[in-house]
Amino acid sequence: MYEAQVKITLKKTVADPQGLTLKHSLESLGFSGIENVRMGKFIVIKLAAKDEKKAAAEADEACKKLLANPIIEDYSFKVFTI
Amino acid sequence: MYEAQVKITLKKTVADPQGLTLKHSLESLGFSGIENVRMGKFIVIKLAAKDEKKAAAEADEACKKLLANPIIEDYSFKVFTI
Repeated sequence: MYEAQVKITLKKTVADPQGLTLKHSLESLGFSGIENVRMGKFIVIKLAAKDEKKAAAEADEACKKLLANPIIEDYSFKVFTI
Repeated sequence: MYEAQVKITLKKTVADPQGLTLKHSLESLGFSGIENVRMGKFIVIKLAAKDEKKAAAEADEACKKLLANPIIEDYSFKVFTI
C-alpha cells in the first residue's frame, strides 16, 4: 500500500483572494511581518499498486486528469510506502 | 525572509465528503486500487522574522489562532529560508 501526498498550489500569476483574506485576518490578529499568504490544497491518496513507480505514475495521472487544473495550478507529490 | 509551508488535514475520525467525492470520481475515471482520499489545505506564508525559530513560532501561532480548527483538524509545517 502506498500513500501519495499531493500539494496543489495556484500559479504565481493567479490572484488568490482566499490567501489575501488570510493575510488581512492575520494582520488584524496582530501578526506583523506577513508578506504574503497563498492558499492551496493538500490531498492524501492511499492506493494499492505493484510498486512505488506505478503508484507515482497513478498519482501523477490523477493530478493531471482530476485533482489539479493545469491552467491555473501547479502540483507536486511524494509517494511513501505505508 | 522565511517561508512557512503549512499542511492542514482533517483528523482521522472526521468524515471527509470532499475526499470521498474525489475517490468516487477517480474510480469513475478508471483508476483502480484507490483505497482512500483525504482532502486538506496547503498554505504558504512568506514572513519576515528575526530568525528561523521566531518564524516557526509565528507560523505555529497563526495555525493555532486562525488557520487550523483544532477540534477537527491537525496541522504541521516546515519553515524554509528564502
